Amino acid sequence: MKKIPLIIDCDPGVDDAFAIILANSLEELDIKAITTVNGNVGIDLTTRNALLLADLLDLDCTVARGAEVPLVKPLREKSNTHGSDGLGGCLNLFPKEIRKELSKEDAVTTIKNILMDSEEKVTIAAVGPLTNIALLLKLYPQVKEKIEVISIMGGAINNGNVTPCSEFNFYEDPEAASIVFNSGVPLIMSGLNLTVNATLTEENLNEMKAIGNKLSEIAVPMISDYISKDAAIHDPCAILAITHPEMFESEDLYVQIDTREGITRGMSYADYRSKNTNPPNCKVLTKMDTTKFREFIVNSIKL
Amino acid sequence: MKKIPLIIDCDPGVDDAFAIILANSLEELDIKAITTVNGNVGIDLTTRNALLLADLLDLDCTVARGAEVPLVKPLREKSNTHGSDGLGGCLNLFPKEIRKELSKEDAVTTIKNILMDSEEKVTIAAVGPLTNIALLLKLYPQVKEKIEVISIMGGAINNGNVTPCSEFNFYEDPEAASIVFNSGVPLIMSGLNLTVNATLTEENLNEMKAIGNKLSEIAVPMISDYISKDAAIHDPCAILAITHPEMFESEDLYVQIDTREGITRGMSYADYRSKNTNPPNCKVLTKMDTTKFREFIVNSIKL
Amino acid sequence: MKKIPLIIDCDPGVDDAFAIILANSLEELDIKAITTVNGNVGIDLTTRNALLLADLLDLDCTVARGAEVPLVKPLREKSNTHGSDGLGGCLNLFPKEIRKELSKEDAVTTIKNILMDSEEKVTIAAVGPLTNIALLLKLYPQVKEKIEVISIMGGAINNGNVTPCSEFNFYEDPEAASIVFNSGVPLIMSGLNLTVNATLTEENLNEMKAIGNKLSEIAVPMISDYISKDAAIHDPCAILAITHPEMFESEDLYVQIDTREGITRGMSYADYRSKNTNPPNCKVLTKMDTTKFREFIVNSIKL
Amino acid sequence: MKKIPLIIDCDPGVDDAFAIILANSLEELDIKAITTVNGNVGIDLTTRNALLLADLLDLDCTVARGAEVPLVKPLREKSNTHGSDGLGGCLNLFPKEIRKELSKEDAVTTIKNILMDSEEKVTIAAVGPLTNIALLLKLYPQVKEKIEVISIMGGAINNGNVTPCSEFNFYEDPEAASIVFNSGVPLIMSGLNLTVNATLTEENLNEMKAIGNKLSEIAVPMISDYISKDAAIHDPCAILAITHPEMFESEDLYVQIDTREGITRGMSYADYRSKNTNPPNCKVLTKMDTTKFREFIVNSIKL
Repeated sequence: MKKIPLIIDCDPGVDDAFAIILANSLEELDIKAITTVNGNVGIDLTTRNALLLADLLDLDCTVARGAEVPLVKPLREKSNTHGSDGLGGCLNLFPKEIRKELSKEDAVTTIKNILMDSEEKVTIAAVGPLTNIALLLKLYPQVKEKIEVISIMGGAINNGNVTPCSEFNFYEDPEAASIVFNSGVPLIMSGLNLTVNATLTEENLNEMKAIGNKLSEIAVPMISDYISKDAAIHDPCAILAITHPEMFESEDLYVQIDTREGITRGMSYADYRSKNTNPPNCKVLTKMDTTKFREFIVNSIKL
Repeated sequence: MKKIPLIIDCDPGVDDAFAIILANSLEELDIKAITTVNGNVGIDLTTRNALLLADLLDLDCTVARGAEVPLVKPLREKSNTHGSDGLGGCLNLFPKEIRKELSKEDAVTTIKNILMDSEEKVTIAAVGPLTNIALLLKLYPQVKEKIEVISIMGGAINNGNVTPCSEFNFYEDPEAASIVFNSGVPLIMSGLNLTVNATLTEENLNEMKAIGNKLSEIAVPMISDYISKDAAIHDPCAILAITHPEMFESEDLYVQIDTREGITRGMSYADYRSKNTNPPNCKVLTKMDTTKFREFIVNSIKL
Repeated sequence: MKKIPLIIDCDPGVDDAFAIILANSLEELDIKAITTVNGNVGIDLTTRNALLLADLLDLDCTVARGAEVPLVKPLREKSNTHGSDGLGGCLNLFPKEIRKELSKEDAVTTIKNILMDSEEKVTIAAVGPLTNIALLLKLYPQVKEKIEVISIMGGAINNGNVTPCSEFNFYEDPEAASIVFNSGVPLIMSGLNLTVNATLTEENLNEMKAIGNKLSEIAVPMISDYISKDAAIHDPCAILAITHPEMFESEDLYVQIDTREGITRGMSYADYRSKNTNPPNCKVLTKMDTTKFREFIVNSIKL
Repeated sequence: MKKIPLIIDCDPGVDDAFAIILANSLEELDIKAITTVNGNVGIDLTTRNALLLADLLDLDCTVARGAEVPLVKPLREKSNTHGSDGLGGCLNLFPKEIRKELSKEDAVTTIKNILMDSEEKVTIAAVGPLTNIALLLKLYPQVKEKIEVISIMGGAINNGNVTPCSEFNFYEDPEAASIVFNSGVPLIMSGLNLTVNATLTEENLNEMKAIGNKLSEIAVPMISDYISKDAAIHDPCAILAITHPEMFESEDLYVQIDTREGITRGMSYADYRSKNTNPPNCKVLTKMDTTKFREFIVNSIKL
């Protein structure tokens, strides 16, 4: 079976962890690299967590450290949604020692090299702030033709969780998001309007617990803590959007990101006006099959 | 039957004309005044049109001229949605001579006097830019307790017709809209999200034509021209919201208006975040019974 | 001697008090009204202080209460520059009882009536936030031709005291300032760039104290407290700009006010580019004769 | 004599050309690289012009191509200040064939490598939009301690040439400028307020012409064309600020760049308020010895 070469750019983060676990469980995918970015927690922690997850899943791919701060504006204070360790308070369940070695190259150089060295196009799942991806596209515009699609978790059509208008990942680095949405690269957007449906039931948690392997012993407490703070498991949607597009409804839309200071900073908005003449730059997912989503999440734990 | 005393602040405009025609046809309402504002067309034309409509309907109320320009920013160029005459190109169907005399007082003073002289609370339907209402509330804050509710046509929750984010009436004078939404006065909002459903069918037009009275001879060509440019008859919704609230679904929300320059100027947004602590300042209408709406519009022509 | 009819719109405020004292001392001026506005302290206090000053100076003019809040945005917290009483902590030096009666008309109606009833043009000195003046010009545009000039204390060319870019009076109500600067009425601007030179020496204070009359007993402690917090006595410049233009250097410039949120909110900026094609809308005072200024202030205390 | 290792990041551009000519003439400097950026003309032309100048001056340094577009926002249309060739219409005076070979590495990688490989700190003269420098600092924060100072031509304290508030280089890429000013790297700023004094006299032009060498035959017509459109030769100031600081007066200030859309986009502003607590991040040059400047420019032509 021909696999889809995949780079996961992320800020683990609990739902990022589930995106990695899910991607690893899907035989359609060949994970080439995990690259980290500042976001749910700081870059030191997202990078450590990526290495811990690579160890936990025995991943063979490169892990590279990316941007420490957003493109233009300074770091914001972190919320506690993912716990202070970014792992839902479950750091102690992981081995103390990290086996996986961090790449000597930074995230942007790593992605650039994978793309330029690849004979086929490579897919990117970008489920954190888009700082690395924006720097990549600005510094090495020649990579664009090597990207199959960037499947993004971020933004929202018409509501927010940080401000009334803005979703977390885009709010963290609106300038980076704006660069990506104006890059001309094919985009899929799993925004908040979609991912609020990416939830688990109590029964799902019990099924996962019942699996009773090494992974479930970490994954279940991690997700339980997270769910108690934020009901939706956003990031795995961007993985399934790559492998199982039939699970989603979508619209091709012209989407822009507001980079101005204030209430709309980081807001993504689509132009629905009949007089709009800008061509679509993004496949915006609008509905999902939540039952299927839950099956995939539960099954991803069965290593 | 106890009637609801009503002031209609408007910028006729074809759908404004239908709001006036509808209000006149509803026995629940007692129209105290029609006040005009710059909007769909300039103040000279909206005022002339209000007088023409008062003549056409033999209205007994005061007609007063209001603001010539928005509160803070300069006049914008007019679109052709309502025809260059603001009457869907049907000016020639009206009598050449105007009988109705314009009030010597301006709109703001007229509204202030009606409110302060009234023993009961008065309702305001505001279906144009909110310039007059904002000036009223700023200059005479003592009127607030005399206002039952302001039923507004304007804004939208999450889409626009002038910019991707902004509806016409609020875009015309965002600072005025912001003043009204922060005034503490009870508000009902019929935004674009609702009023896109306020449409007529070909059959409705035929029914109206078949009525065959003086009013239908003007109203039908006027609305036919308008429908060919903009499918929705927005303004009458704000009248029915007063008299027939059971026709609508609604949510009590905290709504603000973005006054900043740029793509979101005039955008209205609701705070749906679970962490929002601001109390609702507006009853936002979200769904309507379109069949009933059409019946009311058709019947409003039967004088 | 033909006197200049003058309305003083102000927010006393210590330097406002000195503007009134100075205006009263100048035989060139005939004070028709003092109108108050929210600013240095709230509207209740600026109005009370205006009445106290009218009593102190035995002024024969109308005193009318104006806007309680800025035009569009909410009240800000007050600083302590003018003391919590707005009189440099000297409220106790004034008589307990107020003799002067407040006008039954509000400030805007008062100014409108004076202007419309006057056969000659009237000058306005506006030394607080421009809320009243903006409401006046919006609601009664017909008054414009009755205004000789508005002499404004506010703004700055290129520096600020509230933000790095914005001066207090314009920051308090930027929308109002923008309305005034786009009204077409002749304007003189005494901005912060000028008024930082409006200072007194220790010797001036001693001269004032030595006068030893009822006025100096209040004025000297009042100004001493103020000077200890803010070296410059801004507002009297706008009075002298009317009567003694030869004391100042000036440039005719095209000036606009930034109303956007953020660091430049309330910033006034001139267009110095060679390619600017907008005609001047304001005489911007750039230099003053500080020695003469000090003489006028000292002499104004000699009733 | 110990020389100062220097990288010139520029967008030639006529005054950029003079910055390079001047730097080459100063024995205090050792030019390590010229890196190009989009600005006065597009990246293809600025890069070609840098190679032509390297040939003209027999420069031994690396020439590397940099950013094609600003960091976040799209390309703007070019003005004609530098001629459509970026050389004041003098392209035809240069040899048709380019000898100098362009680096295979891009500008950012080139600068990074020079900095990381250098045992001593390196100085950067940045006289175009700051896109390359911002990307460098974001992607390789470790270079910061290898930079002696960045001597910038750009910005202004309190006036503009593109908008009333904004200077060309910062307006071209405000986000990049903001990144640089918040990077913590030592900065010298030669803004428009200074560089308007960097002019030549008719006599200077005659002196240059009289030199009569290969360089004067190109440089004189180039600068004559430029002076006819824009009197000031901005960029060489940033070179002299490195080698001859005694020619300038300066203030250490806290400077920020406004990145918002609108009239102040790209504006640099200093915080002069007494209450400012932010430490200075920039040495802002405020006055210069114009006579000395002219001598340096004239002498720089004597190869």
